[in-house]
Amino acid sequence: MKKLILLRHGQSEWNLENRFTGWTDVNLSPKGEEEAREAGRLIAAAGLEPRYCFTSYLRRAIRTLDLALDSMDRLWLPVVKDWHLNERHYGALQGLNKADTAAKYGDEQVHVWRRSYDVAPPALTADDERFPGRDPRYVMLGADSLPLTESLADTVERVRPCWEEKIAPALAVYDTVFVAAHGNSLRALVMMLLKKTPEEIVGEEIPTGVPRVLELTDRLEVVSDKYLK
Amino acid sequence: MKKLILLRHGQSEWNLENRFTGWTDVNLSPKGEEEAREAGRLIAAAGLEPRYCFTSYLRRAIRTLDLALDSMDRLWLPVVKDWHLNERHYGALQGLNKADTAAKYGDEQVHVWRRSYDVAPPALTADDERFPGRDPRYVMLGADSLPLTESLADTVERVRPCWEEKIAPALAVYDTVFVAAHGNSLRALVMMLLKKTPEEIVGEEIPTGVPRVLELTDRLEVVSDKYLK
Repeated sequence: MKKLILLRHGQSEWNLENRFTGWTDVNLSPKGEEEAREAGRLIAAAGLEPRYCFTSYLRRAIRTLDLALDSMDRLWLPVVKDWHLNERHYGALQGLNKADTAAKYGDEQVHVWRRSYDVAPPALTADDERFPGRDPRYVMLGADSLPLTESLADTVERVRPCWEEKIAPALAVYDTVFVAAHGNSLRALVMMLLKKTPEEIVGEEIPTGVPRVLELTDRLEVVSDKYLK
Repeated sequence: MKKLILLRHGQSEWNLENRFTGWTDVNLSPKGEEEAREAGRLIAAAGLEPRYCFTSYLRRAIRTLDLALDSMDRLWLPVVKDWHLNERHYGALQGLNKADTAAKYGDEQVHVWRRSYDVAPPALTADDERFPGRDPRYVMLGADSLPLTESLADTVERVRPCWEEKIAPALAVYDTVFVAAHGNSLRALVMMLLKKTPEEIVGEEIPTGVPRVLELTDRLEVVSDKYLK
C-alpha cells in the first residue's frame, strides 16, 4: 500500500496576530516549531519511513518539514520545493488584521471570502509591494502565472499540476511520500484525492502540525485516511 | 561571470571532542550553527544571489546550508542532496579519539593517514555497525558502491561525477551556485577546478564556516578565488 503523509505547518507568527497571511513569508512561532518537531516524532513512532518530500516556497512550511525530518533523523531525504503548494493567495487582504477587515467590510463579506469555494477577495494590483512578481523567488515566472488573488477553487486548480506531474509520479516510485504545506493547498489535495464536493471541502478544517496519513492503492485510490495523534 | 560559492560546515560536536568523524552523522555545535548563520550574512552582504544549491547526506552540512539560506532569506532555493559530497570516509578510525589513535598506531602513522593523498586508513568490514550499507539513507546503493574506507584520492574520484553531472550543468543554467559540504569533498572540488597537484591539495586547509567564492568563465575556467570575511 502506498502512503501519503500530509502535514499543515505549525502555528505562525501571524496566526498569533490574527492577520491574513496568504503568500506573506512569515516565520513559525516557537509553538509552531515545537508542533513541527512533535509531528516528526509521531510519524516515526507510527513506523512510517518517507522516501521523498514536497513543500512550498514559504518558510513556515519549509521549516515545518525540516524540523519534522530532523526529529525523524531523515534530514537527508530529497525535498522538492514548489510554489504551486503555497497557501491560497489572499489578495488585497494579505497583511490585514482579521478584526479590522471585518469592521471595514462587514462580518458577512469576510465570511464569504473565507468560507466560499469560488469567491476571491479583492485583487492586488501589479504595482502593489505585495505582488509576488516583485519577489526574487518568483522572478522566473511570468507575471501572468502569478496570482493577484485567489478563491479556494483557484488554489485547487493551481495545486492540481503539482499533484499530477510531481507528487503522483513520486508515489509511483516511492512507497511513502511526505508533503508539508498549508491549510488550503492541503485542502486542494484532499479534495482531489477523496473526491470531495466544494461544500464538503470548505467545511474541512485541517489542524496545524498533526500528520494526516492517506493509504492508497497502486492506482492511487484512497483506502484509508486518518490523523496521527 | 559565473560564481560558485563553497562553504565548509560549521564546527561539529565531534570537532569539539577531537574524534575522527568521516560519515558519522554528528550535529553542529552551537558555535557551528552561529558560523553557518554568519556565512549567510556574508554571502548576502557581498551581493551574491545563489539560485541553486548542493549539499551532502550529512546533517552538519545540510543544517549549515539551511541556516545560511535562512539568514539570507533564500530558504526557498532548490537544494540537491548528494551522498557523493559526503566527507571522506575514515574507515575503521571513525568514532575514535585522535589522541587515542595516535597512542595506538603512533603519531607518524596517523599523520600519514591524515595528510597523504592516496593512503587510506584501515577499512571497515561489511558487518561493522559503522558500515554505511546498514543506514537507511544508503539502502538504494549497492554495497559495492559504498566505501569501507577512503584516501583523499578516493574522495576526489567519488566527488568527480557529482561535479561533472550535477554541479557543472547547474552552473550552465544558473549564474550563482552554492555548495555546502565538508573539508575533503570541498578539497576535491578545489583540486579539480584549480588544477592543484596532490601535494598542493593535502596542504590546503579550508576553514569552517567561511564562504569561498570562485568566479568562472562560461567554460568554467576559474578566474578568481577568494574567501569572504
